[in-house]
Amino acid sequence: MNTSSFLADMLQTISERGRRFLAFNQRESLDDPMGSASALCETLLSSRGEASGMALAKNILDRWRSFDEAEKREFMIMLLDRFGPDTQRLETAIDAYRGHRDASALLELHLAAEPRRQELIRRFNLAPNGIETLVRMREVLLRLTKERPDLSAVDSDFSHLFGSWFNRGFLVLRPISWSTPANILEKIIRYEAVHDIGGWDELRRRLEPEDRRCFAFFHPQLADDPLIFVEVALTRDIPSRIDDLLREDRTVVPKGEATTAVFYSISNCQEGLRGISFGNFLIKQVVEDLRRDLPKLDRFVTLSPVPGFAAWLARERRDEASEALSPAAKAILSVLDDEDWAEDAEKASAVEPVMTAAAAWYFLRARDAAGRTIDPVARFHLGNGARLERLNILGDRSQRALRQAHGLMVNYLYKLDDIEANHEAFAGRREVVTTQQIRRLVPANKPSLSIGSGQGSSSTRQVAINEHASTERTS
Amino acid sequence: MNTSSFLADMLQTISERGRRFLAFNQRESLDDPMGSASALCETLLSSRGEASGMALAKNILDRWRSFDEAEKREFMIMLLDRFGPDTQRLETAIDAYRGHRDASALLELHLAAEPRRQELIRRFNLAPNGIETLVRMREVLLRLTKERPDLSAVDSDFSHLFGSWFNRGFLVLRPISWSTPANILEKIIRYEAVHDIGGWDELRRRLEPEDRRCFAFFHPQLADDPLIFVEVALTRDIPSRIDDLLREDRTVVPKGEATTAVFYSISNCQEGLRGISFGNFLIKQVVEDLRRDLPKLDRFVTLSPVPGFAAWLARERRDEASEALSPAAKAILSVLDDEDWAEDAEKASAVEPVMTAAAAWYFLRARDAAGRTIDPVARFHLGNGARLERLNILGDRSQRALRQAHGLMVNYLYKLDDIEANHEAFAGRREVVTTQQIRRLVPANKPSLSIGSGQGSSSTRQVAINEHASTERTS
Amino acid sequence: MNTSSFLADMLQTISERGRRFLAFNQRESLDDPMGSASALCETLLSSRGEASGMALAKNILDRWRSFDEAEKREFMIMLLDRFGPDTQRLETAIDAYRGHRDASALLELHLAAEPRRQELIRRFNLAPNGIETLVRMREVLLRLTKERPDLSAVDSDFSHLFGSWFNRGFLVLRPISWSTPANILEKIIRYEAVHDIGGWDELRRRLEPEDRRCFAFFHPQLADDPLIFVEVALTRDIPSRIDDLLREDRTVVPKGEATTAVFYSISNCQEGLRGISFGNFLIKQVVEDLRRDLPKLDRFVTLSPVPGFAAWLARERRDEASEALSPAAKAILSVLDDEDWAEDAEKASAVEPVMTAAAAWYFLRARDAAGRTIDPVARFHLGNGARLERLNILGDRSQRALRQAHGLMVNYLYKLDDIEANHEAFAGRREVVTTQQIRRLVPANKPSLSIGSGQGSSSTRQVAINEHASTERTS
Amino acid sequence: MNTSSFLADMLQTISERGRRFLAFNQRESLDDPMGSASALCETLLSSRGEASGMALAKNILDRWRSFDEAEKREFMIMLLDRFGPDTQRLETAIDAYRGHRDASALLELHLAAEPRRQELIRRFNLAPNGIETLVRMREVLLRLTKERPDLSAVDSDFSHLFGSWFNRGFLVLRPISWSTPANILEKIIRYEAVHDIGGWDELRRRLEPEDRRCFAFFHPQLADDPLIFVEVALTRDIPSRIDDLLREDRTVVPKGEATTAVFYSISNCQEGLRGISFGNFLIKQVVEDLRRDLPKLDRFVTLSPVPGFAAWLARERRDEASEALSPAAKAILSVLDDEDWAEDAEKASAVEPVMTAAAAWYFLRARDAAGRTIDPVARFHLGNGARLERLNILGDRSQRALRQAHGLMVNYLYKLDDIEANHEAFAGRREVVTTQQIRRLVPANKPSLSIGSGQGSSSTRQVAINEHASTERTS
Repeated sequence: MNTSSFLADMLQTISERGRRFLAFNQRESLDDPMGSASALCETLLSSRGEASGMALAKNILDRWRSFDEAEKREFMIMLLDRFGPDTQRLETAIDAYRGHRDASALLELHLAAEPRRQELIRRFNLAPNGIETLVRMREVLLRLTKERPDLSAVDSDFSHLFGSWFNRGFLVLRPISWSTPANILEKIIRYEAVHDIGGWDELRRRLEPEDRRCFAFFHPQLADDPLIFVEVALTRDIPSRIDDLLREDRTVVPKGEATTAVFYSISNCQEGLRGISFGNFLIKQVVEDLRRDLPKLDRFVTLSPVPGFAAWLARERRDEASEALSPAAKAILSVLDDEDWAEDAEKASAVEPVMTAAAAWYFLRARDAAGRTIDPVARFHLGNGARLERLNILGDRSQRALRQAHGLMVNYLYKLDDIEANHEAFAGRREVVTTQQIRRLVPANKPSLSIGSGQGSSSTRQVAINEHASTERTS
Repeated sequence: MNTSSFLADMLQTISERGRRFLAFNQRESLDDPMGSASALCETLLSSRGEASGMALAKNILDRWRSFDEAEKREFMIMLLDRFGPDTQRLETAIDAYRGHRDASALLELHLAAEPRRQELIRRFNLAPNGIETLVRMREVLLRLTKERPDLSAVDSDFSHLFGSWFNRGFLVLRPISWSTPANILEKIIRYEAVHDIGGWDELRRRLEPEDRRCFAFFHPQLADDPLIFVEVALTRDIPSRIDDLLREDRTVVPKGEATTAVFYSISNCQEGLRGISFGNFLIKQVVEDLRRDLPKLDRFVTLSPVPGFAAWLARERRDEASEALSPAAKAILSVLDDEDWAEDAEKASAVEPVMTAAAAWYFLRARDAAGRTIDPVARFHLGNGARLERLNILGDRSQRALRQAHGLMVNYLYKLDDIEANHEAFAGRREVVTTQQIRRLVPANKPSLSIGSGQGSSSTRQVAINEHASTERTS
Repeated sequence: MNTSSFLADMLQTISERGRRFLAFNQRESLDDPMGSASALCETLLSSRGEASGMALAKNILDRWRSFDEAEKREFMIMLLDRFGPDTQRLETAIDAYRGHRDASALLELHLAAEPRRQELIRRFNLAPNGIETLVRMREVLLRLTKERPDLSAVDSDFSHLFGSWFNRGFLVLRPISWSTPANILEKIIRYEAVHDIGGWDELRRRLEPEDRRCFAFFHPQLADDPLIFVEVALTRDIPSRIDDLLREDRTVVPKGEATTAVFYSISNCQEGLRGISFGNFLIKQVVEDLRRDLPKLDRFVTLSPVPGFAAWLARERRDEASEALSPAAKAILSVLDDEDWAEDAEKASAVEPVMTAAAAWYFLRARDAAGRTIDPVARFHLGNGARLERLNILGDRSQRALRQAHGLMVNYLYKLDDIEANHEAFAGRREVVTTQQIRRLVPANKPSLSIGSGQGSSSTRQVAINEHASTERTS
Repeated sequence: MNTSSFLADMLQTISERGRRFLAFNQRESLDDPMGSASALCETLLSSRGEASGMALAKNILDRWRSFDEAEKREFMIMLLDRFGPDTQRLETAIDAYRGHRDASALLELHLAAEPRRQELIRRFNLAPNGIETLVRMREVLLRLTKERPDLSAVDSDFSHLFGSWFNRGFLVLRPISWSTPANILEKIIRYEAVHDIGGWDELRRRLEPEDRRCFAFFHPQLADDPLIFVEVALTRDIPSRIDDLLREDRTVVPKGEATTAVFYSISNCQEGLRGISFGNFLIKQVVEDLRRDLPKLDRFVTLSPVPGFAAWLARERRDEASEALSPAAKAILSVLDDEDWAEDAEKASAVEPVMTAAAAWYFLRARDAAGRTIDPVARFHLGNGARLERLNILGDRSQRALRQAHGLMVNYLYKLDDIEANHEAFAGRREVVTTQQIRRLVPANKPSLSIGSGQGSSSTRQVAINEHASTERTS
């Protein structure tokens, strides 16, 4: 007898006895599935839930999986409407706290303010493989929230619990190789979000050669499903073109000769874990593992896409008052409207200096409405403490890269000694740490980048420049 | 280079640069370790904590481990004083919520009421093996709370998070056998709380024979440290004496002939997880696993101690108005004051009927100040849906058992079909489900047990009796 | 420092010292690689080989792998010429044995008659992954033996040792599934010898559905390389067409409903292990494993190709004196010369009865020059104790099957109770056990099949028929 | 259904049908168990053995295990008498070979000279866990051979096959630690042959501290039973007393500070594998593994017992013509007859110089009747290429060591660069490589040690001395 049939037995026993509180017979369920699901959720939250929690949770999650889209929406709205905080209790708790601000009143206020959903979701997790269904559930919830923004209250409970459950302390880093089980590898093919993997042969070329590595974070309860993974190439130099890393006929670098680890693709796998960040920890842990195995490695760098560049450049080209582009620059950039510019060596080299300068501006000066660096990949790496290292015109000639970034790729450099300071500069003062060479591409007599956010000063920036001038020598 | 030295490097780098915000140089730390620890905790909670969270968390937990008892106390008081909710923010949130009770005001109120400790503890968990140190930390905290009851506010944060992290969905049931690694087995010896294991030879006798089983729950991040375990004997009958199960020269029951699984010892291992309940799930899962492997098993029963019996009986014997004991009964029970009564067959058999009746009263009638069944082991099994099956006078002649229970042991029976109803009777109506035979030992013309708590009636009880009369036939 | 570099060090140390007995410096090696290899082999066999056996063996096998085809041939001839028995010692041993036939003389004779190659090959196996290279070595050797039949003396030493090393007692049966490592699965694709696997998607269709199983034998020292594997389909009936099992849009049989396990493809993987039989053990072990997991399975059957049928039929059609085919039958079979006969329902059904009868004759009467059943697949299954169960005209319409067998497939039935008797009938009396229905297709008034080989009699046959008539009722 | 019951079924099926050739019904078996076992062995060797080999082999090995000592003896004698070579075939083969000495005659001669036992033992190995029973079988056989020396013919077949099956290429080196399964650890306690392990607490002290290591060789089919293991202490210096390594209150050496790995105990576990040597490979592999994990280690040394010393010394003391001991030396050594000499510092220091000189003679000059170094441990390490490094008077004060060696221990040094040359000196020229210091303890004007064996010369020895004088400087 296996787990499922054991649970089936238990449920059958319960239902045969017709216990009132588990009122979910087939007819009722058909007439009013939500009423029934809601009653099940109440039971699961009640003291009775302790005795039959696994069976009840399984029953509810089974139902959820069988729901159609409309029913799933109903279910979420039910969670929103009926499983928020107990408002009666909350009012009482507020009154008590305002009466005397002591520890027990504070604790009761905290408990009363917690939506009942949180405990409910914790109990859903009692079901076998509950966590997997919960991740899929949030995937749907995030989609639904677009039309029903009020569901974000439900999402905040899911994301609160996921933040706790997918805490770095519980994740396991595992190497992915050509001897990894096929059911995991097919997910690597499916989830690869940056440079498509065309099939199993291409996958092998990314995993098997001695100058390739791949690592993924897993959660112990989602053992066959990676959360995030990074693909690494071992090289002698910092690469400027993705094709040098991926083309079929490249020469493999003997393991002992590699000095540089290139993170060339990082993919989040679980839409249902959006916003639960592990990328930061992933890169640091991978750096650590690589250094242990390959002591000769002394440079850790990315080769990254720039997904926001083309859209920004189009806006600037249209903007008559653009600070970033002079009329002359705009004229030169009109070449980009030719479909074949990237194939035409002359056109490409004509556009290169202007585009390079524009790219420098995009990273160092351009900001979104919230005052943030525009590029999401840049925010990720700079926020993790990397430095913007090099701009690579036509680093990626794929259709997607040409469309998103006119083929631009960049390298971010991870330097152990500077990670902390770089992170602080970016997160605290919104300063982008880069090389002097890139910095010089942006006019120096302009006001400091960070003046707008009121948190920096040109003297601070100067320090930053000096600091990085010196680090440049050692890199 | 291994993890530790990598982290050591990172910390060194940081400290060498003398970053202000990591103000924890050696001198300051010696003068005012709590000031320094507190500053580290603030940094860990800040945005900077994102970049160096693992290193910071490791640093704080390393300090904690090096603290002496007084410093640990200081640390906890610091968590209490400085890392509660942000009261300013909380007042604002209450005002906003009272202004307009909408979803976002509610969410903000919930967030503002959460003690900052919770996020802090989550981030402690970033350290390598963080969860282990956190469990040890709560062990100390529980001890400290006895003298400083206000620390229970800190404990409620620990227990809230542990409830989430040690959710059944994350636990793994593993068989413990003679081929389990020795470092785990030595913990089984150490943690055994019911019937001491005298050493490795005795441990082998409990694990190796084909009529013995043992199972433990583990958490993936505490892979070598069981949370709770249960020892099981496979038998032909329901045993009445622990010695029949444990004595060296017993005859092993061939695996195929066993019909009954006896849970004769259940031990919680982690004092730091007190109150985080897994026992309930453990027994159900073990029943399931045993049924799958040994389809002939059809009876699941405990042989359990009665730790509160002797103390209760002493009180009743002293109480002149005792309802439980008549003067005649008291006179007979005076034999218990003879040191050798248990060895003396005549004395033992003289006392047996009175003691049996007293035991029935102890389980069925006696209640503590809160109206609960007195015996903690009884509360555990009855709350899990077991039924009180048999009273075994002198079931355990060990010193401990004689002291705690005059040697009394009992069997609780787990019957799949009745677990739900039994749990409901006990948890909902405070009714103890038992056999007719035991029930008859308690005078029937007394008012119903549950009248005191206002939740029952004699007709309800009658139903219970009838129900169990019928289940008896099928057991 | 890893194994290779350790060994490299050791070799370097040795060679630097220029020890005479390891005379294999680069120049000599270039001039006379075999001389050098031969010297190395002598050293490996000598007492010095004990101290540096691993390094020497590695050195020799490394050389072997770097050899071109001609050098490999030379190496094998060297083994033949220089590493046979010590003939001097052998003559002495024979004389001694003829002198007095005692135990020690016998032992010495046995030792003296053993080619020195055997110990040499055993010592080759000291090299890391030596066994893998030895298997590849024999692959080459088998190829070379075709032109140089005298090399079969070398092969008999390899096959003697392989028979011992790949003894069933050392092999491990492992299930192959969609969660098997990809580097093993790609070998399943490559080695599949019966029904080609078109790629990873088709592989998944053969492994992932709940009505599919696959098992392989592995040797502990060849952990990533299967020796032989069998693909199994779980069905409700005995299938007659391979397409019913393999087509993409078939309906999956729920696991609990399957009653029949169909072995539809068995592939030997290692050419270098040709003649070392594990197939027999494989099927029995798989039957056992399947019965344990799926107690409802009660029928174990193959769906097998008939690779020798078309060639035999062509010979009979040409043979004017054919006993198997009457002139009328030949006339009907001329339809087979139409390219489209298999596509044309009318032609196919016209040919069916004659072809069925011819097939029955092929299995029951036709014999090769050595008096054996012609079909190699039939010899394998009948020799393992299976019974010929059913003839399936056009069971496989693939080009290969049409060419080899005019599309004929057959089922062999493995019945636990009869395996022993069936094997004995086939191996001992050359009798093919089959059903009465198939037997009736072959004229009964002919002399008994086995008379020719002098080992049977019509009365014996009669018994066999009766026996199988009776087993038919129970199948 | 598990393997055993499957096989039981199969056997039952076979026996129920009463097949003649498996004539082993109960009565016959009781009357003449050997007749029956012999018939089973013949069947196993026959073609029928192919179909039911596993079941037959299991049956025979089951019987063997149930045999009493006398029956086991009978069984072995049966193997001796009935399963030698086929002498008829052998005579024919000899005649053929003498007729024309070609390859096929040679092959046939080799096959005919092979005792039929070898194939029989190979087929025994088909039984589940066959290899384990075969190892136990040889254990008995070795014991029996003492009274019946003719059984050594049977043993030579076992040892021939074991040599092939336990080839280094098939063995796996595994670290043994405190987290190794208890069922393996209890075997370490049981098999420890040099310095007794008093129980689990002492075992933990030998495994758990960071300056301790243990490694064992396993065979894949004997997964829970080590073949040989070595215990290692990591130290700063070459130790001279075992007590410094083993006493409870010693100070643990931090892992990073150790420079020296001391092999202080090597134990063969399987009496049934006596003479099948793995110790040589074990030490080399362990050196390799330790160097990889702990690159700071640069010295590999033993601390070894001298089991033959006391017996040799007693003989020399009694021998009036002793070359090793002068009358003056004998007089001093008479102190050894005092029971308390080792406890009495004065006596011990009085005897030390004489005993040291005697020990040097014991290793460098003394030889057994076969001309070999007397001490078996010395033969093992010197034969593996170690050098005799230091003599430690009273290195082990245990009763056993005092009795066997008057407390003497020695260090053997394994130096990678010299292993080959040292082995060659010892195995080829019977020369003991040692330090100049030890060599000087033996009078130089005596004829060279190796002159007696005709394989050396004083000039050779001189070279050796010089060589080792120079290696001393670098050690």
